[in-house]
Amino acid sequence: MSKVSIIMGSTSDLPVMQEAIDILEQFGIETEVDIVSAHRTPEKLFDYGKNAHTRGIGVVIAGAGGAAHLPGMVASLSPLPVIGVPVKSSNSIDGWDSVLSILQMPGGVPVATVALNGAKNAGILAAQILGSSDIKIQDKILSYKEDLKSKVIEGAKSLKK
Amino acid sequence: MSKVSIIMGSTSDLPVMQEAIDILEQFGIETEVDIVSAHRTPEKLFDYGKNAHTRGIGVVIAGAGGAAHLPGMVASLSPLPVIGVPVKSSNSIDGWDSVLSILQMPGGVPVATVALNGAKNAGILAAQILGSSDIKIQDKILSYKEDLKSKVIEGAKSLKK
Amino acid sequence: MSKVSIIMGSTSDLPVMQEAIDILEQFGIETEVDIVSAHRTPEKLFDYGKNAHTRGIGVVIAGAGGAAHLPGMVASLSPLPVIGVPVKSSNSIDGWDSVLSILQMPGGVPVATVALNGAKNAGILAAQILGSSDIKIQDKILSYKEDLKSKVIEGAKSLKK
Amino acid sequence: MSKVSIIMGSTSDLPVMQEAIDILEQFGIETEVDIVSAHRTPEKLFDYGKNAHTRGIGVVIAGAGGAAHLPGMVASLSPLPVIGVPVKSSNSIDGWDSVLSILQMPGGVPVATVALNGAKNAGILAAQILGSSDIKIQDKILSYKEDLKSKVIEGAKSLKK
Amino acid sequence: MSKVSIIMGSTSDLPVMQEAIDILEQFGIETEVDIVSAHRTPEKLFDYGKNAHTRGIGVVIAGAGGAAHLPGMVASLSPLPVIGVPVKSSNSIDGWDSVLSILQMPGGVPVATVALNGAKNAGILAAQILGSSDIKIQDKILSYKEDLKSKVIEGAKSLKK
Amino acid sequence: MSKVSIIMGSTSDLPVMQEAIDILEQFGIETEVDIVSAHRTPEKLFDYGKNAHTRGIGVVIAGAGGAAHLPGMVASLSPLPVIGVPVKSSNSIDGWDSVLSILQMPGGVPVATVALNGAKNAGILAAQILGSSDIKIQDKILSYKEDLKSKVIEGAKSLKK
Amino acid sequence: MSKVSIIMGSTSDLPVMQEAIDILEQFGIETEVDIVSAHRTPEKLFDYGKNAHTRGIGVVIAGAGGAAHLPGMVASLSPLPVIGVPVKSSNSIDGWDSVLSILQMPGGVPVATVALNGAKNAGILAAQILGSSDIKIQDKILSYKEDLKSKVIEGAKSLKK
Amino acid sequence: MSKVSIIMGSTSDLPVMQEAIDILEQFGIETEVDIVSAHRTPEKLFDYGKNAHTRGIGVVIAGAGGAAHLPGMVASLSPLPVIGVPVKSSNSIDGWDSVLSILQMPGGVPVATVALNGAKNAGILAAQILGSSDIKIQDKILSYKEDLKSKVIEGAKSLKK
Repeated sequence: MSKVSIIMGSTSDLPVMQEAIDILEQFGIETEVDIVSAHRTPEKLFDYGKNAHTRGIGVVIAGAGGAAHLPGMVASLSPLPVIGVPVKSSNSIDGWDSVLSILQMPGGVPVATVALNGAKNAGILAAQILGSSDIKIQDKILSYKEDLKSKVIEGAKSLKK
Repeated sequence: MSKVSIIMGSTSDLPVMQEAIDILEQFGIETEVDIVSAHRTPEKLFDYGKNAHTRGIGVVIAGAGGAAHLPGMVASLSPLPVIGVPVKSSNSIDGWDSVLSILQMPGGVPVATVALNGAKNAGILAAQILGSSDIKIQDKILSYKEDLKSKVIEGAKSLKK
Repeated sequence: MSKVSIIMGSTSDLPVMQEAIDILEQFGIETEVDIVSAHRTPEKLFDYGKNAHTRGIGVVIAGAGGAAHLPGMVASLSPLPVIGVPVKSSNSIDGWDSVLSILQMPGGVPVATVALNGAKNAGILAAQILGSSDIKIQDKILSYKEDLKSKVIEGAKSLKK
Repeated sequence: MSKVSIIMGSTSDLPVMQEAIDILEQFGIETEVDIVSAHRTPEKLFDYGKNAHTRGIGVVIAGAGGAAHLPGMVASLSPLPVIGVPVKSSNSIDGWDSVLSILQMPGGVPVATVALNGAKNAGILAAQILGSSDIKIQDKILSYKEDLKSKVIEGAKSLKK
Repeated sequence: MSKVSIIMGSTSDLPVMQEAIDILEQFGIETEVDIVSAHRTPEKLFDYGKNAHTRGIGVVIAGAGGAAHLPGMVASLSPLPVIGVPVKSSNSIDGWDSVLSILQMPGGVPVATVALNGAKNAGILAAQILGSSDIKIQDKILSYKEDLKSKVIEGAKSLKK
Repeated sequence: MSKVSIIMGSTSDLPVMQEAIDILEQFGIETEVDIVSAHRTPEKLFDYGKNAHTRGIGVVIAGAGGAAHLPGMVASLSPLPVIGVPVKSSNSIDGWDSVLSILQMPGGVPVATVALNGAKNAGILAAQILGSSDIKIQDKILSYKEDLKSKVIEGAKSLKK
Repeated sequence: MSKVSIIMGSTSDLPVMQEAIDILEQFGIETEVDIVSAHRTPEKLFDYGKNAHTRGIGVVIAGAGGAAHLPGMVASLSPLPVIGVPVKSSNSIDGWDSVLSILQMPGGVPVATVALNGAKNAGILAAQILGSSDIKIQDKILSYKEDLKSKVIEGAKSLKK
Repeated sequence: MSKVSIIMGSTSDLPVMQEAIDILEQFGIETEVDIVSAHRTPEKLFDYGKNAHTRGIGVVIAGAGGAAHLPGMVASLSPLPVIGVPVKSSNSIDGWDSVLSILQMPGGVPVATVALNGAKNAGILAAQILGSSDIKIQDKILSYKEDLKSKVIEGAKSLKK
């Protein structure tokens, strides 16, 4: 089974990105985690992007804030599906900068963008991607959806008391 | 090999969504195309979302404009990865409505959002998803990237003349 | 007399939505309250939307945050007037996401949208809707408006002291 | 049965507002139409708002552009439910001005806001409001929803040919 | 000499609006202060707007938040110059709502809009308006500008130490 | 009686600014018109701002687009009330740039901002300012308001036919 | 004297970027022009960024639209000052995407951003940068400013006729 | 070697602007620091802008908030490259006002804009500008980039432990 590689531009993004790591662990999917900065370690970015698909990785999750170039640059270099997580950093203009820098990729080079600070959803999406060719993971997604449902039903019950 | 299912809220979205169909055809990936409106055919939406993964579909691409609920509702109902294409419809508030209605999904239910009117990228992303477990498709993505590069190099040459 | 049904996507929306419950109680209008999540309990949503008008409900108030699909999906399924309350959740992009996801409904399926976090106004609007065919409720609205006026007049007096 | 009163700030809003008139006519609901400008005919606004509920009107639909004060001022003066239609006028800042001027009403004085230029939905919402105490109108809404569905199904069929 | 009338929609606006009162006092210009709510005291608004110019008032300063209709409605009713102060209230969408509701008035009915929470500047502008026909006030404005300058020069000096 | 000085950053702003000239002429108020560019003729700006109040001018109207510095810089230099007209130029970001560059002046230096392209309202506001100390102009404003009203009443009549 | 290198992501950006080439030619500054796409030719980008400062280039001007990564990635790789030109491409969200993707660079890696489509200003800024160590170019800038002034003065004269 | 002049509109901008001073000191580049307010000390602004290039200054860094006119007015007066730092002040509309007031300069008068509160990057950009004609400074930039890289590599290592 393929691994999911989770990268981020800075250790300061870790509190947000940890949610992707946690949910993938919960699904029993192997992850690797690294710091790769498009702006401060361009050579590492280049090596990472060129080689990720050659070493057993099936999906990349890349989180970054501000003028977030990391997801798009990995998408430029790699044939893998890249999920981008816009991170609301300090001095961000309300998160609009990272959202638009990740979402509005030109034709030919998509990034699968999730909500602002939506690292948990990035992890689930990565699982769904692996699950599209792996029935066991797809079943886990179905169970996860059942759990979500149960929690809402319980919440509704407690509300009525 | 899994199929890609391309749905949209209205036939008026077809001119935008056709780009997804065309690029997938170019990659030799089988597609199905349908109109499913979250707001006007909720029963069809429900059936579609509940059953898509049971009939050989690996990825869903859903395009919609305005308060675009189609991609998110399919993501709610299906374990498949769902790619959302915000469509800039008439009376849209500059596209912000469809972008935010698709992107800002709550924790637990991701939609892989691409750029405004970015149906072509939705098709490529679907191919990358299938390619993450199918080396032949991944090779086609790598070739496609080489073609993109060649066109830029040619453009650069013609510029210098 | 019809009841007003107040639903929300999550128990975390309750602090905002409580204001709708309170003001309707103040008007002596019967309410029911439930959690219905478009994204986590789609079957419950479906049942709710299909049947609300058959069990004595006259107006639906639906509150949700982020890519808020609950009000629009109920409006899709039910012939009742649906009032949508955009809730400013954490990780919201300043509330724009829930406002636009609720407001910008396509032709054919309206949602009566109130201000961000405007659950109190949703309650008053529900009372006005019932009041359009019930003179007693309309009279209560008129009295309520007189009370609003009195409070401003008193505030103005205290200012001048 | 109550009438629906459709007012607008200027004859230049008529092309947008006509859709509300047409759909209500289609539902067999009586309408009256008038020009009432909050900024140019404040006395007429005052008389209109104070008396609308006394002459058989059940719902008000008010359309206006720019700093759109008409819906909110009628809501201030009348106990009736007021539906506001933001109109995208020339020199509008992309419609944001009318949307926010109508939507963001203070606590106590709601306006049921519909989408930018969404006069058709305003008409349907008015019918739904009257329908909440009139089973015949509610049935017409249900039929209307069936028609919407049929058109999508037909569109889907023609797509597959 | 004319008075300046300072009104606001709610006592909760007073902390912001106090700056207008203070600066006018500093210029020795007589003020009156009142609460007039467009949405909760429309009759008082009407009387106020119709009569302000008949009782010695030269300029109106009106502050309001959210869908701020007070400045525009006074401008509709009165021949006096009306200065609008957008107030950033709770549940405001970052202040955009009050800014656009005050600024984007239709042709024929201007409101002199100042910055978000800019009550101090509203006071200075009122003084400048009175000063355009009163050389003594204009001289005070010139002195005030000299004071502003001196404070910056002193700040610059302290910086260099 | 004081004159109104109408300046703009470029001859390309004249089509918008002409409306201010026309309406002031209609009120019988003397105007002067000039091109003063904050960015291209800073010396002329400086002379203009320092001396406008010494040569019979009572109000300045300044129109500019993009990073519109002209109104604010005149307000910096002159004790006169300055009305700023945000002009939507080509390459503007939807007009937001000129609106915010003119509106958001710091404490101490107000600009009376009108709507995007709102030169007509700038002219009326200038007349209202002069009218606050000149009963004849104030009467003209009152007549103008009556005319606005008559046109709406006529429009309403023609609608009913 | 150093050269200015003007690069852009696509030949479709040339109509906008030509203004930079023209103004630099007018200043007698040598330019080179190339197409370098961050997303389609990442290797070329890498080579370009790593080596530009070694072959006589003093300033880089980089134009790009959408999620514009070219200016930031060159700034990541090169020690040269990089001027970024946000280009308003089709499917752009009103230009906000390219503006924020270029402007909001993280600490350590600046891009000198100019206005949307502001290629002419990028050229002038490049000349000013070279002029800060070359008195002849600085004199040309001073002359250019005089020309700007003359044109405004002439425009003002023609206006008065 | 040229100096870098760092100016700001108010001492309240110093906490943000200090980062520019510090980084330039770290590069061993001489700085001068001053308060120059476009709106409160226009004469000082005028003198500053006219003469900065005559007294050994090579680059100007100007920081300001709100309707930030300081960078643009210095760019109007001086042939030097001017770097603008948008400062997020209190009562700012999320920083949009200062960003747009600095960025959207008209053709002929560029300001090199950096990110909101991006004073550190302004300092680095100034060093890069001086470095484009001074190989020693350019080498320091290259070393600085190596340091940035090392810190990321170390962060990545600590993450893996």
